Amino acid sequence: MTDVVLYDYWRSSASYRVRIALNMAGIGYRSVAVDLVAGEQRSEPHLDRNPQGYVPALEIDGLLLTQSLAIVDYIDETRGCGFLPEDPAGRARTRALAHVIAMDIHPVCNSNVVARVAELTGGGDAAKVEWMRDFIRKGLVAFERLLDHPATGRFCHGDRPGVADFCLVPQLYNAERWGAQIADLGRIHAIRIECDRLQAFIRAHPDAAR
Amino acid sequence: MTDVVLYDYWRSSASYRVRIALNMAGIGYRSVAVDLVAGEQRSEPHLDRNPQGYVPALEIDGLLLTQSLAIVDYIDETRGCGFLPEDPAGRARTRALAHVIAMDIHPVCNSNVVARVAELTGGGDAAKVEWMRDFIRKGLVAFERLLDHPATGRFCHGDRPGVADFCLVPQLYNAERWGAQIADLGRIHAIRIECDRLQAFIRAHPDAAR
Repeated sequence: MTDVVLYDYWRSSASYRVRIALNMAGIGYRSVAVDLVAGEQRSEPHLDRNPQGYVPALEIDGLLLTQSLAIVDYIDETRGCGFLPEDPAGRARTRALAHVIAMDIHPVCNSNVVARVAELTGGGDAAKVEWMRDFIRKGLVAFERLLDHPATGRFCHGDRPGVADFCLVPQLYNAERWGAQIADLGRIHAIRIECDRLQAFIRAHPDAAR
Repeated sequence: MTDVVLYDYWRSSASYRVRIALNMAGIGYRSVAVDLVAGEQRSEPHLDRNPQGYVPALEIDGLLLTQSLAIVDYIDETRGCGFLPEDPAGRARTRALAHVIAMDIHPVCNSNVVARVAELTGGGDAAKVEWMRDFIRKGLVAFERLLDHPATGRFCHGDRPGVADFCLVPQLYNAERWGAQIADLGRIHAIRIECDRLQAFIRAHPDAAR
């Protein structure tokens, strides 16, 4: 019995980030699926949770929180997890890396955006696939270049997994799902191998959350 | 003479956020224009600053920072500005509001995304306008509903301007520029009137930064 409830969808990248963070923090939670394919995100009960009609939403400490990175910061600040480094320069770098993915790749590839592209172009699934592959690759190529930095360690920043890694791994899942070409991005792959070894990441994987 | 340099573009929402934050913090800075219309963001000198080819980038304290909200957090953390409330619940709410705009509206309306839509649909400027109006209105309607909350004050959270306001005002500038219909969003307009009175916001306006 736990009072932490995650309203999520197994394939949602933003939900996947929060699952990783909850696992890293050792917070037990109950999942309530919001079926995005069936349109449950547009139901009144869910719009009361989040008027944007997006997942995730998290019930914790008597609060209802939305926006994945705001949730991750809340967990970090209330549980002292160290998801960000302690020095301001390192914090800024880690946040910038997280935002490359969470602000510049993921929203453009959000299912409702891509559905609109398919509708406007009349290009159907082929238009979706091309759009996804393009924006995901372009963003991850920039991310790879940003990892060419002395502060990169076993993880995106140093040797401890943090918020940038929580964003990267779900984005890589999405890249594979859509067939984006990223095999040449060596620094990213090295970090992924490290993350894939961690139970917090393994248990958060969409196949485990399905 | 100052050693703080902002690489920006007058019309960029993300740059506008950072200009507000720098002004609020009382940090003098020198602007270097990166002309997005002329494609300067894809020049090697700028890609060395930010491999994504986006503005803003900020030189400060011997660092080169990217990603507008990571920059705002850095300024806040190093100068103790109070851009976020002190309580974790308030911080989470303020960040979530900021992210509704910075993650879910702005990136989808980024000039390179909208240019792609126009190209794919062959719809030219009309396709751009429709796309912008649609996503901006949809996002701001959700934002308005999130403002229906006891913590909303003269500003998005309480009576002190913060990071959510820094995101909101540039988004409203964009909404007007593209003719998005938002006249019915009363809470948003009330906050805008408060922000429009502040020198930090006035001096950051695109017309002042041009």
